[in-house]
Amino acid sequence: MGGENAPRKTLEGAALALDSYPDLRFLLFGDEQSIKPLLSKLPNLEKFSQILHTSDVIQDTDKPSQALRQGRSSSMRLAINAVKDGHADAVVSSGNTGAYMAMSKFVLKTFSGIDRPAIASLIPSGSGEFVALDLGANTACDAQNLEQFAYLGAAYAKCTLGLSSPRLGILNIGEEEQKGLAVLQEAASALRDSEDFNFVGFVEADEIMQGGIDVVVTDGFTGNVVLKTIEGTAKLMKTFLTQAFSSSLRSKLGYVFSRPAFRFLAQRINPSHYNGAIFLGLNGIAIKSHGKTDSLGFASAISAAVDMMQYDFKGTVANMLEAAQKNGDVDEISEPKIVDI
Amino acid sequence: MGGENAPRKTLEGAALALDSYPDLRFLLFGDEQSIKPLLSKLPNLEKFSQILHTSDVIQDTDKPSQALRQGRSSSMRLAINAVKDGHADAVVSSGNTGAYMAMSKFVLKTFSGIDRPAIASLIPSGSGEFVALDLGANTACDAQNLEQFAYLGAAYAKCTLGLSSPRLGILNIGEEEQKGLAVLQEAASALRDSEDFNFVGFVEADEIMQGGIDVVVTDGFTGNVVLKTIEGTAKLMKTFLTQAFSSSLRSKLGYVFSRPAFRFLAQRINPSHYNGAIFLGLNGIAIKSHGKTDSLGFASAISAAVDMMQYDFKGTVANMLEAAQKNGDVDEISEPKIVDI
Repeated sequence: MGGENAPRKTLEGAALALDSYPDLRFLLFGDEQSIKPLLSKLPNLEKFSQILHTSDVIQDTDKPSQALRQGRSSSMRLAINAVKDGHADAVVSSGNTGAYMAMSKFVLKTFSGIDRPAIASLIPSGSGEFVALDLGANTACDAQNLEQFAYLGAAYAKCTLGLSSPRLGILNIGEEEQKGLAVLQEAASALRDSEDFNFVGFVEADEIMQGGIDVVVTDGFTGNVVLKTIEGTAKLMKTFLTQAFSSSLRSKLGYVFSRPAFRFLAQRINPSHYNGAIFLGLNGIAIKSHGKTDSLGFASAISAAVDMMQYDFKGTVANMLEAAQKNGDVDEISEPKIVDI
Repeated sequence: MGGENAPRKTLEGAALALDSYPDLRFLLFGDEQSIKPLLSKLPNLEKFSQILHTSDVIQDTDKPSQALRQGRSSSMRLAINAVKDGHADAVVSSGNTGAYMAMSKFVLKTFSGIDRPAIASLIPSGSGEFVALDLGANTACDAQNLEQFAYLGAAYAKCTLGLSSPRLGILNIGEEEQKGLAVLQEAASALRDSEDFNFVGFVEADEIMQGGIDVVVTDGFTGNVVLKTIEGTAKLMKTFLTQAFSSSLRSKLGYVFSRPAFRFLAQRINPSHYNGAIFLGLNGIAIKSHGKTDSLGFASAISAAVDMMQYDFKGTVANMLEAAQKNGDVDEISEPKIVDI
């Protein structure tokens, strides 16, 4: 029920995903009266879906604490519960990010060995794409959080990009060891001898966009700012490009000839292809779709969930943490924590 | 002597700046033997320049502390001294940023009322350009630092963009008052009643790129990451565009027709036009040119210095701080501090 144009876009996205992954089965949590007429127009999806009715919906303006207390019968909460109870393998939502993260943490809890979950996403670069985390779950992080994010991000790169030894860097404002904040130096020194990924040290934001790095670790404040700066800059470049091609008759003619090139470009930078932020570190797969995405974007978010199921993300992280602990790379695995909200 | 292709690029840049501002006079600090033959090819610049020979040069690999101790007769240090001693109105250098900032702080000291200088620059947006600071001088900042940066940034926007009441925002990961880090909320609450600029509250990175904000305040870590993300994304978009226009014969033909449009675009996003990072908050004008810029970029850095001289940046800040202090907006003006290195 979350995000703009829900539940129409959500259902059309699910139908698209079903075309690519015919084995998918859907539990649709939300208002039956809104869902049913839309679903009847998508007969294939209808065949493989089950509606679980609730009229309670988390609003975009709800605070996380409010959603936790008052949203116990909301579509979002019931969908998360379905993962916890084993009725679903993953949950995908376009709703309120803060509420979704808080409820997911509360219901699913974090992995053994992971204190805080992080939000991760794929971002396009000159050489393909890279995994970036945390993109906003934790505004302030200590070195141990960043170290754990490294394992989560590396495991996600292994599953989703199919890499055996991802190149991983910590985002900083210089590559020299003594640069930047103390917490980054501490995290870097803890990761230096990791065997499960190729730790390249500090990386800078201009460098990561050019490619060659597979996983970028940062705190949620910086990560969120980077993500929005990329979006803003790409949008600005598009504005400038449009202005450039309207600046003269010859330019307008040039545009007509250039349409295939622009289609090619539009596809390379289509945010729908990169939709689907992953809550990493939870005992269960939870994917956040952008509230403003289209049906193609929602389908991408579902396919991110499929990747994590198919390639056993949780098992990959568990193996890495266990191996790292044996090697003394990480502190002893702590008990799963009850999350403080 | 600093940066790539020095001193050739430096001299050609100075010659270009002299074309635009015929009243400029130059003191050229550096190796006379390298400078002289190049200068003889720029007769107009030669007429209005004086070489002050020194063979000592700060290297890009020198640490700030090392530069301070051992670089007392370097071209960079002597050029800064010239501002301190009243022989020059401004210093412009393409050399080692850390060393340049440390020496400038040490020699020129900060304004009364300003604890730490910040690095500022103009950045292009959808509606023109905005002032961003700090871009890397202070990796960690408290609320008072950010508050002071707001006054410095607003004064710079008044001088360089000619605005009487710039729209100023603090960079955060959400616009709601309770979002982000505590230090940002503290700074925002201190700025809320400012009369010298229009404080709009928290702004997000995607929003600032679209335009409408004149000054963006952030800590030096985040600011530096934002700047490099913009550079990286713009470069990536150019790569994608080039690939798009090489993807078919029709696209290549489209490119031929579109050349004027691309020239228009290239000019809009030419980093040389935005070259010249300003050290704000010092008792003297010090401008940092990018080490990799071309002669046009070095000329832009010089013109940034001219703006600050012509529009009395220092007087503008002093008036604002005095007025704000009377209104109780800022803490009592502290004595100029001896900078700790």
